Amino acid sequence: MNRVLVTGASGFLGRHVLPRLQSLGFEVHAVAYRNGVDLPGVCWHRRDLLEESAARDIISQVRPTHLLHLAWCADPANFWQTADNLRWLDATTRLFAAFAECGGQRVVGLGSCAEYEWGSEVHCHESTTPTHPFSLYGKAKLTAGHWLDAQATAGQFSAAWARLFFVYGPWGHRSRLPGVVIDPLVEGRPARCSSGIQRRDYLFVEDAAAAIVAILDSSVEGAVNVASGEPVPIIDLLKGVAHILNSEHLLQVGAIPDTETNNPRSISADVTRLRDEVGFTRSVSLDEGLRRTADWWRQTRYSQAS
Amino acid sequence: MNRVLVTGASGFLGRHVLPRLQSLGFEVHAVAYRNGVDLPGVCWHRRDLLEESAARDIISQVRPTHLLHLAWCADPANFWQTADNLRWLDATTRLFAAFAECGGQRVVGLGSCAEYEWGSEVHCHESTTPTHPFSLYGKAKLTAGHWLDAQATAGQFSAAWARLFFVYGPWGHRSRLPGVVIDPLVEGRPARCSSGIQRRDYLFVEDAAAAIVAILDSSVEGAVNVASGEPVPIIDLLKGVAHILNSEHLLQVGAIPDTETNNPRSISADVTRLRDEVGFTRSVSLDEGLRRTADWWRQTRYSQAS
Repeated sequence: MNRVLVTGASGFLGRHVLPRLQSLGFEVHAVAYRNGVDLPGVCWHRRDLLEESAARDIISQVRPTHLLHLAWCADPANFWQTADNLRWLDATTRLFAAFAECGGQRVVGLGSCAEYEWGSEVHCHESTTPTHPFSLYGKAKLTAGHWLDAQATAGQFSAAWARLFFVYGPWGHRSRLPGVVIDPLVEGRPARCSSGIQRRDYLFVEDAAAAIVAILDSSVEGAVNVASGEPVPIIDLLKGVAHILNSEHLLQVGAIPDTETNNPRSISADVTRLRDEVGFTRSVSLDEGLRRTADWWRQTRYSQAS
Repeated sequence: MNRVLVTGASGFLGRHVLPRLQSLGFEVHAVAYRNGVDLPGVCWHRRDLLEESAARDIISQVRPTHLLHLAWCADPANFWQTADNLRWLDATTRLFAAFAECGGQRVVGLGSCAEYEWGSEVHCHESTTPTHPFSLYGKAKLTAGHWLDAQATAGQFSAAWARLFFVYGPWGHRSRLPGVVIDPLVEGRPARCSSGIQRRDYLFVEDAAAAIVAILDSSVEGAVNVASGEPVPIIDLLKGVAHILNSEHLLQVGAIPDTETNNPRSISADVTRLRDEVGFTRSVSLDEGLRRTADWWRQTRYSQAS
């Protein structure tokens, strides 16, 4: 039986990944820094992967055949430039090394569209778009992906690097889009936002989780963009949720000035590899995804983890 | 006083680097796996950097302000794909981490033109040419360079990554060009070679050493190509040494078939950064360099390290 170890398993993406892995027949082991998520059949391991011996301990205990590494520093307030990115890079290579030592077969690590060079507009292709990240986060992710690729080239295991674009949905952070707007709107307060003219590739979190699990379950090697392939103006996203919440009058478009730097007019993804080699296409439309996101927000209000 | 630690100091490039560092006023500490080189004023440390504690030990003992990291697996027979590349990648990040911990100021690491994607022909620019190495060596070097860049971005030190192209000169390996041809010719034996139509950017080893020291002594950050900027057909190099050795009749051009894979028609370097930002231009012409290489080979014959 295939046994998968999932890091960052209690996070935004991780909690959506677990049931999909179970449905594919994996024995699921999940690592979390704090508490796990109540899900029957998942074996939780509470560990801090930044501790030097943690990776080796957990890997030698679980002896997974598959590794899905989602954990990384993700505080919206500082993840772009915090030196914690280097600590996570270090922890990540320790994890990959321990997995190789234990005879693990297949790894998928979580990369980012921030690994690409962002000009004024960028359409990201895995092998032809230059990778010159503006942020320490992007640089550390890029380095981790290259490290994994080198290990795979050396025959240590099979590996892919899932470069995630923009994700939204239940359990999204309230300081990120579209949460930053939904949060006040569900309370009937005005929601200030920028012009929203920038185009971004948004994927519903359950689709993102399904794509990443499909990559793990495939034999595709190297970098794979995880996105919808259909960028939309951010304002469409915001107006969409405002419409669903019957509160378009509370949306204050342009109340916040647009960020000048590292804010391309468009960030889109070439999803040819994901579609043709992994065989994945999204199943939740933007409208449907926004409706489900808004529903979840209304139901949970302030009960979600902040 | 600035104190530099040089790894791989007894190697082909390393031994040419040491006197230049001394002439710039550095206190020079040199690490070698085996024996050092007899050079007054250089302090040698015999260590195997692949040992887990070696980097931290040597760095905390020497406490260098500058680090020039040249050591890597370099066996011509297997360096492209040996798993030792991963061990050197690991050792390299330990070295950089230890240097940062000790408050080191400036690092230059040794990269390679093999980090770039080699199509049928490639003109390599540091930031616009895609980096998709065909070899494990190239992948590991690329990863190390990205790791260094991430540390520099986090403010741990100032750093540059010297991407070396093709180097020749005294102490070159006899199984590499042009040694593979000079070696038989100085003995009066026939020298078999391929067509030699491929163009490569060759730099005399003393110029390469001077360029790398100039980069260390500058504040330039990130990747810098180290090359002449003037690619020549390999056959010009071979005919040049045969002419100097009065043995053109012994050169058997085409006796060895050209390698089909990973053997681009041309590999050249954009040296704008090296010239304009570092302020370096080569001082030894190809003719002069070949003459000095042939002279050295004649004098030492088989006495050089193999």
